[in-house]
Amino acid sequence: MENLNLGRHISGQFNTDLENVRNKVLQMGGLVEKQLADALNAIVKGDVELARQVVSTDRQVDALDVNIDEDVAQIIAKRQPAASDLRLMVSVTKIIVDLERIGDAAKKLARMIVKGDASQQQLLVRLEGMGRHVSQMLHDVLDAFARLDIETAVAVHREDAKVDLEHQGLFREMTTYMMEDPRSIPRVLEVISAVRSLERIGDRCQNIAEYIVYMVKGKIVRHISGEELEALVR
Amino acid sequence: MENLNLGRHISGQFNTDLENVRNKVLQMGGLVEKQLADALNAIVKGDVELARQVVSTDRQVDALDVNIDEDVAQIIAKRQPAASDLRLMVSVTKIIVDLERIGDAAKKLARMIVKGDASQQQLLVRLEGMGRHVSQMLHDVLDAFARLDIETAVAVHREDAKVDLEHQGLFREMTTYMMEDPRSIPRVLEVISAVRSLERIGDRCQNIAEYIVYMVKGKIVRHISGEELEALVR
Repeated sequence: MENLNLGRHISGQFNTDLENVRNKVLQMGGLVEKQLADALNAIVKGDVELARQVVSTDRQVDALDVNIDEDVAQIIAKRQPAASDLRLMVSVTKIIVDLERIGDAAKKLARMIVKGDASQQQLLVRLEGMGRHVSQMLHDVLDAFARLDIETAVAVHREDAKVDLEHQGLFREMTTYMMEDPRSIPRVLEVISAVRSLERIGDRCQNIAEYIVYMVKGKIVRHISGEELEALVR
Repeated sequence: MENLNLGRHISGQFNTDLENVRNKVLQMGGLVEKQLADALNAIVKGDVELARQVVSTDRQVDALDVNIDEDVAQIIAKRQPAASDLRLMVSVTKIIVDLERIGDAAKKLARMIVKGDASQQQLLVRLEGMGRHVSQMLHDVLDAFARLDIETAVAVHREDAKVDLEHQGLFREMTTYMMEDPRSIPRVLEVISAVRSLERIGDRCQNIAEYIVYMVKGKIVRHISGEELEALVR
C-alpha cells in the first residue's frame, strides 16, 4: 500500500486540479462547521436571527456539494488518476455526502429555534455539551482530511463512543421529563429528535474518518472493528 | 447529454467488468430487499428466528459493499471510463452506501423483535403498512437501476412524500399512547425510533433515485425541486 503523494505529479495542472478539489472540500467543511457552531449558539442564546442565518447558509453548502462532484467527475475523466489520487477522488465524492447531511442536521436544529417556544429552548440548552463535542469531532476530522493525518482520523473515530453515551444520557433525561409531565411529550419528542441528529453527526464524522483512512492507507475500513482500526495506526 | 450506452464498448472485457459491477449492486440490493421484507415478516409474526437471520445477513451485505467499492476503484484505474461509464461508477459507489444503511435499518428493526416483549411487538405491527410501502420503493428503485429507467426512478422519488405522511400519522398515534399511559413511554419511544428508521429508508430510496437520474441524464439532481425533477422525464 503506497502512501498519498500529492504534489508530486509531473503535470502541474493535475496538481492544481487536485488541490482545488481538496480546498473546496475544506471550504464546504468550514461552512458546515460554522453552521453547526452557529446553530448551537442560536440554541444557547435563543437567537432566532442567527438561527435563520444557519438555515440560509444551506444553499451555499448544497451548491458546493454539486460543484465538487462535477469537479471530481471531470478530473477522473480528463486526468485518469490512479492509486492514491483515485482514492482521493472516490473518497471526496463520499465525504461530501456526509458533510452535506451534517449541514442538514444543523439546519434542522436551527429551525427548532426559529419555530419553537421558550420552554422548548430551555430543554434544547441541555444539548449544548453533546453539540460542542460533535462540533469538535467535525473540526478534527476536517483537520485530519487537510493534513492526511490518519492518527487524528482514528482518534475521531474512537471519540464517537463517548457521544453515544451522551446520547443515551440525554435520552434518558428527556424520557423522565415526559413521564413526569405527559403534556410535555410532543415538545420533548422534538428535543429527542434533535439529540438523535447530534448523535448522527457523530456517526457521520466517523464515516469521514473511515474515508480518510481509505485515502491514505488504501484499505476499506467501513466494517472492521475499532481494534483493527487502531492497529492500522500503530 | 448523452445517454448510457452499456454494452457498446469495443473491449469485451470492459463490458464484462461493468456488467459484473451492476450485477453485484443488484445482488446487494436483493439481499437488502430480503432483509427488509424478512424484518417486516418477523415483526408481524413475532418470529424471533427469522429476525435473527436478518441480523446475520448483514455480514454478507457488508462484504458486498467493500467488494463493489474495490471493483469500482479497479475499473476506474484500469479502464479509465469516460462519460456515462464514469457516471455509472461514481453512482454505484454512492448507491451502495445507501443500500448498506437500509440493511442496517432492517437489522435494527429485527433486533427489536429479538429483544422486545409482546406488548412492544403489538405496537410494531402498526408499522407494517409503512414498511411494505418503503419495501416497494426499494424494489422499484432497484428495478429502475437494473433497467436504467428514470421514469420509475422519478416515480419512486415522488412516492416518498406519501411515506412522510405515514410517518407523521404513526408518530402522532404513538404520541397518544404515551400521553394516555406514561409508563409505556420507554417502550413506545423505541417504536417511534423504528418509525423514523422506516422514514429514512424512504429518504435513501430517494437518494438512489437521484443517483440513477444522474447516471442516465448526467445531471446532478440532489438539490433541485420535485417539479424540476419531473420536468426531466417529460
